[in-house]
Amino acid sequence: MRLPTPWRELESGVCSIARTAELIGQPWMLLVLRDLFNGVRRFDDLAEHLSIARNVLSRRLAALVEAGVVQRTDYREPGQRARQEYRLTPAGWDLRPVLLAMMAYGDRHLTDPDGPPTLVDHAGCGGAVRVALECEYGHRIEPDTRLTGTPGPGARWRSTSSTATG
Amino acid sequence: MRLPTPWRELESGVCSIARTAELIGQPWMLLVLRDLFNGVRRFDDLAEHLSIARNVLSRRLAALVEAGVVQRTDYREPGQRARQEYRLTPAGWDLRPVLLAMMAYGDRHLTDPDGPPTLVDHAGCGGAVRVALECEYGHRIEPDTRLTGTPGPGARWRSTSSTATG
Repeated sequence: MRLPTPWRELESGVCSIARTAELIGQPWMLLVLRDLFNGVRRFDDLAEHLSIARNVLSRRLAALVEAGVVQRTDYREPGQRARQEYRLTPAGWDLRPVLLAMMAYGDRHLTDPDGPPTLVDHAGCGGAVRVALECEYGHRIEPDTRLTGTPGPGARWRSTSSTATG
Repeated sequence: MRLPTPWRELESGVCSIARTAELIGQPWMLLVLRDLFNGVRRFDDLAEHLSIARNVLSRRLAALVEAGVVQRTDYREPGQRARQEYRLTPAGWDLRPVLLAMMAYGDRHLTDPDGPPTLVDHAGCGGAVRVALECEYGHRIEPDTRLTGTPGPGARWRSTSSTATG
């Protein structure tokens, strides 16, 4: 992922990592998303499992809805008033590789000696799920494979001189 | 990634996603790591590109060193005093899929109309890099492929009753 020369001349904030970090880069956002991926959808269940106050959870869910990754739907159990549950939008589902990549890192570097807390398998065959990097021509990208970065069409050069922000 | 029943009975914090989120789940951590992946290694260059105060950057780098993902090394240019630069450790390199998964999400959902700010290619052949999910038996995991989760050896059941944390 090394950029030849101009990386330092590009706007640091005009960056897909920076933007995604702004969306999900708070631990609590990731934990709410994780619970939604795991099928916990009801407000009460989320509040209870995450052990957070209801007003805090409300704000977090509202932020996720606002960001377009979560949607609110009504459900009603027989004889009960309507309640709301929360589901991932298609955009929210696109965060699955991010969470699985984080999980793989945690499984490798941050587990207790007894091993990973959760196993995630392909429902079709039971095989353990892995995050793989590859290039469009099918080559595997291993940890030591060199990557290069080049400014894309959306890159922005920094308008200030380097001394202005030092 | 849906867990059958017991997910809500597991400790929310005993989780590889939660732990990785605690490590990198602050936007600024991710931006420092991103710059290191992109070959920005010197303190002055990082401070300048990230437009942050030197004491703030010092604290952030110290936290990354403490977490074992960054190491500090000395370098000296002819006629200059020794200075320090920062490099990813092998554990730090294992975060590459996390950053690339975040980048893929941002490229898809958060770019300006003119397209992605950065293109990352396999240095060997120039092919664009992709994050792929697959299972250990080689099946591709697409966005609509169902996954199942089961408690792993490191799972912890919640010790309190559900009403205690409500």
